[in-house]
Amino acid sequence: MDYQLHNRVLTWLQIAGNSLRQSFNRTIQVSEKTSPRDLVTEMDQATQDYLVQQIQTYYPDHQILGEEEQADRVNGTEGMLWIIDPIDGTLNFVKQQRFFGIMIGIYQEGQPIAGYIYDVMQDDLYYGIVNDGVYHNQVPLDPLPIESLADSLIVGNVHLFVNNDFNARALLEQSLGVRSYGCSAYEMIAVIRGEAGLYLSAGLCPWDFAAGYAILTAMGYAASQPDGQALSLLERCPGVFAHPTVYQEAMQLMNP
Amino acid sequence: MDYQLHNRVLTWLQIAGNSLRQSFNRTIQVSEKTSPRDLVTEMDQATQDYLVQQIQTYYPDHQILGEEEQADRVNGTEGMLWIIDPIDGTLNFVKQQRFFGIMIGIYQEGQPIAGYIYDVMQDDLYYGIVNDGVYHNQVPLDPLPIESLADSLIVGNVHLFVNNDFNARALLEQSLGVRSYGCSAYEMIAVIRGEAGLYLSAGLCPWDFAAGYAILTAMGYAASQPDGQALSLLERCPGVFAHPTVYQEAMQLMNP
Repeated sequence: MDYQLHNRVLTWLQIAGNSLRQSFNRTIQVSEKTSPRDLVTEMDQATQDYLVQQIQTYYPDHQILGEEEQADRVNGTEGMLWIIDPIDGTLNFVKQQRFFGIMIGIYQEGQPIAGYIYDVMQDDLYYGIVNDGVYHNQVPLDPLPIESLADSLIVGNVHLFVNNDFNARALLEQSLGVRSYGCSAYEMIAVIRGEAGLYLSAGLCPWDFAAGYAILTAMGYAASQPDGQALSLLERCPGVFAHPTVYQEAMQLMNP
Repeated sequence: MDYQLHNRVLTWLQIAGNSLRQSFNRTIQVSEKTSPRDLVTEMDQATQDYLVQQIQTYYPDHQILGEEEQADRVNGTEGMLWIIDPIDGTLNFVKQQRFFGIMIGIYQEGQPIAGYIYDVMQDDLYYGIVNDGVYHNQVPLDPLPIESLADSLIVGNVHLFVNNDFNARALLEQSLGVRSYGCSAYEMIAVIRGEAGLYLSAGLCPWDFAAGYAILTAMGYAASQPDGQALSLLERCPGVFAHPTVYQEAMQLMNP
């Protein structure tokens, strides 16, 4: 890992976070993408533009995959690839003014190198560097202990359990219960902190999981699609992210 | 409202909150009540004991209804009644070490006078005094704007939507979506802040809603059982707590 790069990311996240916090003092322009539940704001675009500009300035030969209208720039995962979600949880950003995050994943030849999830309103930064470790506000993070699925909460969207996607109700019944924060960043953070043993999602774009997947890889946690296939960095796919023991139990329940 | 009493409550909550925050530095004794999802810790009892002792010292003629083994003390709602939940969200307290609260509701002749919800780990106090107003950390609280159910998130346990209790899936479909924090205190706070337009629960004891109901009454919000009956201060019952416009829409969907 390049620690000059790492320190730059920390600075960029602070600057981007300040802009987002300050944006609540004025009226923000909000538009619908595909539905009233799928929003984009001027701050999503402004934050992505800022991050892309910084990356291009210092790392002009790196590829960038971002949520806001830049997916077409990337044809493969060769070389260094930045995957960024400028505001993960835009609906929460608009309607709750908290419970959202900025996420950055850094990949080399398709493999995770580092991930950053910044809980902007809490000013809480979680990051993981593969073959180094995981940190919360620059202090090594020691997750809360989890022994098994029966001993853990899980996180995911309520629709998973209503529809019983991937046999999710078996996970609901055999765990301590479900928490649903409406935001991948928050649900990844719950797994990283050990507040939940598993995060399941029916459909994630690369920017929804790239940061969390890198952090969880640095922790030795497990992740895949619910059927066991590898996650895709180039296409939307379902995903399960879990404590290693909980992952084994959950995969059996999801693939009986 | 008696402002000497109010100031005492603020002091007690700070002292109780400090004890809870400090308790994470040592091993806490945890026991199951009815199941592994229904926990009680030494800190639930210690916090309740502290609050009861303070109330009895200053207000010996007041009644007290608390979650931990004191329900049998109260036969009716005459006079001044304190309803306390020393740790609302004990499972979160144990497994997440955040997302829990201390709640106190004060009632006179069965009518709400004041309510306090203390988000201990955030050090965020929400309180409402009927005929005065609602405050967040002593500053008047201005909730985020909500226009309608279609314009709002809702909060509640995932089982409501899986089981379609009270036709809850119609609320899921006609709102912006569901958030589930696993704790009445947090779900009430979401409604108080305007982060969610409605909180629905299939079963609440008086200490689960007394504080929130008092705060929402001070805000002019609506609350009842899903069939329109009044909430009960002496028995477990389902409850809906909502922004007035959202309440009207939700009651029609729940009672078609």
